Amino acid sequence: MKALAIDLGGTHATCAVLDDRTILAEEVVSTDGTQGLKPVLPLFAQTFRKLLQETGVATNDCAGLAFSFCGLADTRIGRVVSTNQKYDDAVGIDFTGWSKKEFGIPLRIENDARMALLGECYAGAARGFDDVVMTTLGTGIGGAAMIGGMLVRGKHAQAGCLGGHLPVLFNGRTCTCGNIGCPEAEAAGWSLPLVARDWPGYVDSALGKDEPVNFEKLFRHAEQGDLVATALRDRCLSIWAASATGLIHAYDPEIVVYGGGVMKSADIIIPFVQAYVEKHAWTPWGKVKVKAAELGNNAGLLGAIPLLLEPR
Amino acid sequence: MKALAIDLGGTHATCAVLDDRTILAEEVVSTDGTQGLKPVLPLFAQTFRKLLQETGVATNDCAGLAFSFCGLADTRIGRVVSTNQKYDDAVGIDFTGWSKKEFGIPLRIENDARMALLGECYAGAARGFDDVVMTTLGTGIGGAAMIGGMLVRGKHAQAGCLGGHLPVLFNGRTCTCGNIGCPEAEAAGWSLPLVARDWPGYVDSALGKDEPVNFEKLFRHAEQGDLVATALRDRCLSIWAASATGLIHAYDPEIVVYGGGVMKSADIIIPFVQAYVEKHAWTPWGKVKVKAAELGNNAGLLGAIPLLLEPR
Repeated sequence: MKALAIDLGGTHATCAVLDDRTILAEEVVSTDGTQGLKPVLPLFAQTFRKLLQETGVATNDCAGLAFSFCGLADTRIGRVVSTNQKYDDAVGIDFTGWSKKEFGIPLRIENDARMALLGECYAGAARGFDDVVMTTLGTGIGGAAMIGGMLVRGKHAQAGCLGGHLPVLFNGRTCTCGNIGCPEAEAAGWSLPLVARDWPGYVDSALGKDEPVNFEKLFRHAEQGDLVATALRDRCLSIWAASATGLIHAYDPEIVVYGGGVMKSADIIIPFVQAYVEKHAWTPWGKVKVKAAELGNNAGLLGAIPLLLEPR
Repeated sequence: MKALAIDLGGTHATCAVLDDRTILAEEVVSTDGTQGLKPVLPLFAQTFRKLLQETGVATNDCAGLAFSFCGLADTRIGRVVSTNQKYDDAVGIDFTGWSKKEFGIPLRIENDARMALLGECYAGAARGFDDVVMTTLGTGIGGAAMIGGMLVRGKHAQAGCLGGHLPVLFNGRTCTCGNIGCPEAEAAGWSLPLVARDWPGYVDSALGKDEPVNFEKLFRHAEQGDLVATALRDRCLSIWAASATGLIHAYDPEIVVYGGGVMKSADIIIPFVQAYVEKHAWTPWGKVKVKAAELGNNAGLLGAIPLLLEPR
C-alpha cells in the first residue's frame, strides 16, 4: 500500500512517498514554526509532486496523505486543536480540503508523538504489540498511548499525549504547561539547566563549568565521576522511571518505548527504567517490556500507513 | 429494565433488585474477605430469591446480574484477575456459570470503582457525561476512567483503576502496591497516620494527642487551628489536586467525581481541587468540572444497568 506522508517539526518538515514499511523517497523542507503553516503548504505540494515523479508513483495509487503535526490534532475532524507556539495558524486550516484539492486523496492529521507510536508499532520496537506507551525524551517530554490496537485520544484529543505532564513531584517546579512538578519540568532538555543551577555545588562542578548544560554533557560528566552530574543524572533517571510506572498504571501496556534525543544514552536509561518498573509497577499479569525506539526520525513517517488504515 | 446487582466489599455484600435507577429492594449480607468467596455464594443466591419474591420480580424479567467486586476483574472474560487480600479464591470462580445455574440469566462482573463510575454516570454526579474520571478517597485511593462512554480497561483490565497509584512524589513513601510516592501512600486513610507520625511537632500537637489519626480528626483539628493538622491537611489537598491534574492529563475527561469516606469534608476538598485544576491543568478546550459523588454506597449497585447494557 502506497501513501504520502509529512512529518512537521518546528524548523523543518519531511515529505515522503511510502510503500508499506519502505520510504521510497523523501525530502526535507525548511520551515519556520513562528511564521505559520499556510505559507509553506504550496511548498509541500510542490515537493510531493517532485517525489511522486521521481518514484513513478501516481497520486491515485496512494491511499492517502498522513500529516504528523507538532501539536494537538484531532484526526476525527481533520483539525489541529491546539498549538504550542509553533504554527499557531494551523488551528484554522482545512487540511483535508487542501489534500483533496492538491492531490484528490484523503488526508488524516495526527499529533507527532501518536504518529511515532504508530510507526514503532508498525515497523519498529513495538511490532506485534497492541498495548503500548511511547515516551519521547528531548527538549520536552512527549508521549502517546495505545490500548487494544487503538490510539488513546480522549474527548478533546489530549489523552495519552500528556505523559510528560503527569506530575511526579507535587511540590516541584512550574512547567510551561502551567502544571507543577511535571516530568518535563523536572527532567527534560529545557528544564535541566534550571534544575542544575539550583543544585548545591553546581557552580564549582565539572558540569557547572561546561555550560550550557544538556543531557549529553550530563551523562558524560557523570560517567567521568563528577558528583553533581552523577546525582543529577540519577535524579533524572528516577523521575523518568517513576513517570514510566505512572504511565503503566494509567494505560496498562505490555511495552514502553522510549524515543527522542536523550536516547543517545539508552544504554543507561533503558536498563534503569526496566529494573525500576519490574520492581515497582503493579502488574500481576507479568512484566512490562522497556525498549528504545528503533526508527529514529522516520517513526512519524512510518506511522502513515496504520493511520490511514485506522477504522473510522 | 430490571436487574439483579451485588456490591461486594471486604466485610459485607449488598444484594439488590433494580428497576432502572430505582433500587426496588436490597439486603446486606455479612461476609469475610479473608475466608473466601465460595462459601458465601449460596447465601447470595438465597438472598436474591428472597428479594425477588418480596418485589414480585421474576428472574427471567431481569436483564442479568451485575457483580461489583473489590479487586481487579475482567468483565470481558467474566473473571476476577487479581485480588488484594480479600476473597483470594475469587480468581478461580466461574461467575457466569454460577449465575446461569442459579438464575438462568447472564452475569457481568466488574471492579467496584468502575461500577461506582458507571453508577454516577447513570444516576448521579456525572449524568450526561461520557468522559469521566472517578476517584474514591478512603482507606485507599480507588479510581476509574471513562472515555467516550466506554470504561477504560486496558489489556489486563488494570487501566483506569490505578489512579491512586500514579506517583506524585517520585522520592516519597513506599506504597502497598510496591510503587513509590503514590497518592495512596502519601494521603490516604492507611498512610495518613504514618505521614503524621513523621511530621515535625506532631507528638505535641492537638492531632498527635488524639490518636488514632484519621481524616475526620485531621480536618477537625485543622479547622480548630492546630498548626500540624493544618499543614498536613494542606499537604493532602495539594496531593489530591496534583493527582487530579495528572488524571485529567491522562484521560482527558470533562468531569472528575470524588467519592469515598473522606468526602465528608467535600466542602473543603472539592473547591480546593476545582481551583487547582482550573489553574494548573492544561485544557485549552475549557474547564474540567470537579464534583462530589451523589450516590454514596448505592453507586456500585446503580452501575448494574449500564454494565449489562454495555456493547460486547
